[in-house]
Formats: sequence, C-alpha cells, structure tokens
Amino acid sequence: MGDPAGIGPEIGARILSNEEVLHSCIPILVGDASVLREFLLPGDSVDVFTRETFRPREIGRRCILDLEQITPAEFVPGKVQKGCGAAAYQYILTAIRLCEERAVAAMVTAPIHKEALHLAGVPFPGHTEILVHETGVQEHVMMLTSEEITSALVTAHVGYAEVPREITPERVFQTIRLTTEAMRQIRGRESIRLTVCGLNPHAGEHGLFGHEEEERLLQPAIRRSRAYFGSSLEITEPLPPDTAFLPAKRAQTDAYICMTHDQGLIPLKMLAFDSAVNITLGLPILRTSVDHGTAMDIARTGAADERSLISAIRLAKRLIIDNG
Amino acid sequence: MGDPAGIGPEIGARILSNEEVLHSCIPILVGDASVLREFLLPGDSVDVFTRETFRPREIGRRCILDLEQITPAEFVPGKVQKGCGAAAYQYILTAIRLCEERAVAAMVTAPIHKEALHLAGVPFPGHTEILVHETGVQEHVMMLTSEEITSALVTAHVGYAEVPREITPERVFQTIRLTTEAMRQIRGRESIRLTVCGLNPHAGEHGLFGHEEEERLLQPAIRRSRAYFGSSLEITEPLPPDTAFLPAKRAQTDAYICMTHDQGLIPLKMLAFDSAVNITLGLPILRTSVDHGTAMDIARTGAADERSLISAIRLAKRLIIDNG
Repeated sequence: MGDPAGIGPEIGARILSNEEVLHSCIPILVGDASVLREFLLPGDSVDVFTRETFRPREIGRRCILDLEQITPAEFVPGKVQKGCGAAAYQYILTAIRLCEERAVAAMVTAPIHKEALHLAGVPFPGHTEILVHETGVQEHVMMLTSEEITSALVTAHVGYAEVPREITPERVFQTIRLTTEAMRQIRGRESIRLTVCGLNPHAGEHGLFGHEEEERLLQPAIRRSRAYFGSSLEITEPLPPDTAFLPAKRAQTDAYICMTHDQGLIPLKMLAFDSAVNITLGLPILRTSVDHGTAMDIARTGAADERSLISAIRLAKRLIIDNG
Repeated sequence: MGDPAGIGPEIGARILSNEEVLHSCIPILVGDASVLREFLLPGDSVDVFTRETFRPREIGRRCILDLEQITPAEFVPGKVQKGCGAAAYQYILTAIRLCEERAVAAMVTAPIHKEALHLAGVPFPGHTEILVHETGVQEHVMMLTSEEITSALVTAHVGYAEVPREITPERVFQTIRLTTEAMRQIRGRESIRLTVCGLNPHAGEHGLFGHEEEERLLQPAIRRSRAYFGSSLEITEPLPPDTAFLPAKRAQTDAYICMTHDQGLIPLKMLAFDSAVNITLGLPILRTSVDHGTAMDIARTGAADERSLISAIRLAKRLIIDNG
C-alpha cells in the first residue's frame, strides 16, 4: 500500500478492480483496510484478512491483508508523518515474509517516503535497502525498465565523488550478468543486446578526458561478459554517453549499462516518466516497484495515476511465468 | 569549411545558395575553392577571393575566401588526414583574424576532426581551445542551444573525477552570468528563467548522497546571481537532475545550468540532435558552431544535413543584431 498519506492507498485500491490485473493474478493488497475502504468502488466485494486469518488458498479474485497499523483518524493525508512511516515499514516486512514463505509469487511496491521512515526510526532510506538487509544478499542491481528504454545502474544512490571507487570490474560484470538474465526473461529470448555507457565525456577518448576508467574498469568486465555468455550476448564497447541514447542507438539495444544514477535516469525519465518499473535484480525474491514517489501534493485529489503500478504488476507477472 | 575530408565542404557549399542565409547575411566561406567547387550548383556564380584580393566591401551576395591550403588530389574524402587537419586549422585562424579586424561580424564553424588536428601538430583538440588561446580570454562557457532546450556547461571536456575540483562558486556564477546575458539576447527580453541542476543524485538530499556540493558550491553562486541580476533573473535551487528535464520543467525555463558535459548533452542530444547550435560565451568575438562532428562515414554520400549549420548562422545573426 505504501505510505498511507501518499497516493499509495488510492492507486492500490484501483488495481483491485482493474480487469487486466484481475485477469493475470490474484492481488493481495498489504496495508490497512480502514484506510483503503474510502477508495474502493461501491459494490466492490473485497475479502479482508488479517495476518492471523490469512489463508492464501481461500482468496477469491483479490483481497486486502489488513495489518491494522493505522486508521484514517491517526494521520493527515499529504503530510510526512512518523506513524505512516512505521506502518509502511510493517507492510514491506510482511510482504517480504510472504515472498519468503512462497505464499505469494512476487511483491510489487507502492511509494514510501524516506523522511517518514526516518521519523519512525527505520534505519533504511528505501525499499531496496530494506530488501537487501532482510534477504541478506551481497550483489544487487537497480534496473528501471519501460517500453521505450531500460537502464541498469552500476552505481545508484551514491554521491558524485564516490562513484569512481564504486565502479569495479567485478561490479560492472555483475551488473551486466544480472541485466542480461533479466532481459532474457523480459524479452522472452536468449539473445540480448546491451549498450555500455562510458563514465567520462566522449567515453574518455583514451585518457584525453579522464583517467581511462573505460579501459581499466569497463573493458575487462565487457570481455568477461562476452566469455561468460558467448554469442548470445551482443555488448558494445563503452560509448560516449551523450549520443548513446539517440533513437537509432536505442533501437539497437535491449538495455543500457549506466555508470551513475543520473546517466541512466535522465534519459529514462524523459522517455518514460510515470510508466517505468523499478526492479531490484539479484534478490532471492521477485520485487518490482513503481517508478515514482508518494506524490504527497496530489494525494486524495484524484490526480494520481496507477499506470506505473499496473506496469510493475505486469512485469512481475512476466518474470514469474518465465521463472516457471 | 571545416575538415576538407568531412561533410564541411558540402554543407558549406549548400548554404551559399540557401535563400534564408542569403537573405539575412553575406556569407564568406573560408576554405579551399578547389574542394568546394564540386559542391556548387551549376549556374551558381560565387566570387572567389584570396587573402590578398579579399575586400569585404566588394563582395556581392556571397563569396569563397580561398586559402589554397589543399586540393582534392591531395586527400581522400572520409579519412582522417594530416593535411586536412592543417588546412582546417588555417581556416579557423583566418576566421578569427577577420573577426578581430571587424571585417566580419561573426564566425560560424563547420566540423573539424580532433585526430586530424593532432596529426598536423596542432596543439589544441578543438575550436574552443583554439579560440580561447588566440583571443586570450580567461572565462568562457560552452552553451548548446536549440528550439527545445538550452544547456550551459559549468564543466565540459574534463574527466569525471576532475569535475568536483572544477566546480567553484566563482565558475558557477560566471556560467550563470554569461548564460543570462546570452539568453537575454536570444530571447529578446530582459527577464530570464534558469534551472540549476545538482551534481549528486537527488541533488544530494542535504549530504545524504554526496559531499553537499549543492550547498557549498552551487547555492552561494545562485545567491550571488540573484543579487547581481535582481528580479530580472528567476533561478532555481539545485534540482535533482533526473527529473529536471521533464517537459513540465522544460516549459518553465529558458536554459539549464549543467554541472557536467553529459548532464547537459544527454537531454540536449535526445531532444535536438543535429539541430542544436554550439556557442562559446565569454569570447571577445562572436562564434557559433554546428553541434555535430565531421561525419566522415557519410561524407560525399549526399546524406549530410545542413540544418545545424543554418541554425548556427541564424543564431549568430540574432546575436549580432542584438549586439547593435
């Protein structure tokens, strides 16, 4: 459900009566029934379970898993609040447990607010960090995908100056490996084309601009990826970032391997704002997410758009099927 | 004329018979007449001067200033060659002298090739460095402008790791100042709106991602700019770069102040590939340029596109008029 004060409850409630969603899966909306009720359509019959009464095999077409964390009387919509951060954290922990118990096939996250989590004393800034901590994985990659463009990030929420230290041949290889495996599932074919962006302007021009990060860090990882995947992976040398995203180049690639958060997200948000899906690669559970925030400013105005949430459900469904 | 082996000669020759260009100025194409002749339309009567016979007041509608540097027999089109680099360098030096002598109002540059310059022993990688050296300026700013978007670069051809050292409050202020002055001329109005992009993901979130470059380096320059220009400048705080270029934000700004080459050029090339104009701000002479390379691969195929060159001429004309 995401942060109760943001747009999560309304877009979450909408998917419970979305025909495409109901046709493709049985959605279990983890959150607070008292908050969600005002957004359900009249005549919607939605089963409500608690953690105690919850029996996955007894769900009809859809249900709410009511964690009874907060009621509408206890918070103000559109505001960052401690109680909302604490509630959202419990929804996430429960969803992770359901995935781990194999009670559900995937989790799809609605937006939460970093500051609300912080006020609630949660020691993580976002979903990804919570997931990484709870599942104990070492290597994970943030990938954003849409019809128009897919960007996988070698570094993400890291300051500008720390980036060169975070980029290692091992890290670049793991990003390429996880992205290739994910794109095989998303595209439904073995053969994948990846475009690697350089770190420096003009991809460094052999050390003219920069310390040859392209040659020291990227090229060894590219060579290793070619050896690992053989002819099923078509991967470029590090390209000048400013021309790598032109339409002709986009048409020739399945995904971009981006060195920084903004190198990947500037083009992605320009091409697919509000429709991209965020997926954390490398986790033992399947998790997709909306690619937008809590949008506190438009909460309860009816302006919220559920398309990114539906895209995230659609992608999760595709990845489940392909996982068997 | 740019590098003789690239697309410069053909797009240069085309503008000599472009009605819009001839209507707005008297173009003087600085290059080699022997190379240009094959691209002139039959029946085109173009005066040819040498440096010795050149008299600005005697030019009719257009002319070629023939520097007799190279002939078609001395090079192969589409290849990087020493002789072409040396010739292109002479064209540029001559154009700079003509500007300094006030024989012409502005110079507009066609593409040259960095490696060809290097082979010819020219100790500069591009036009900007030659212009800066020849005119002896201290402060200059690379700005790219198009109908869709304008990006001014606080740092340009600098390696990733050097960027934080290059960004100083003084440098950011000068970029804002020169950009504001240029945009006043381009827009033909006093009041200008600028958007400042942060350096770190999410513009740093107060030090959560990065070393607070936004607060230490950018905000002092923004405050100084507000004091300098008063209410005629509307300038943002440092914004998260990934959402700064969304259509709604673009509609509210005249130009972006970008921290790095690719932060400014990824969105610019996505929105205005082949139609943007490159202008060097801060020079004592007026210079605009095409925003593309020599395109050796399509030289002499007829596929070259002169639109960026025409845009560069149009912009130079506008800046001349507004300069009085």
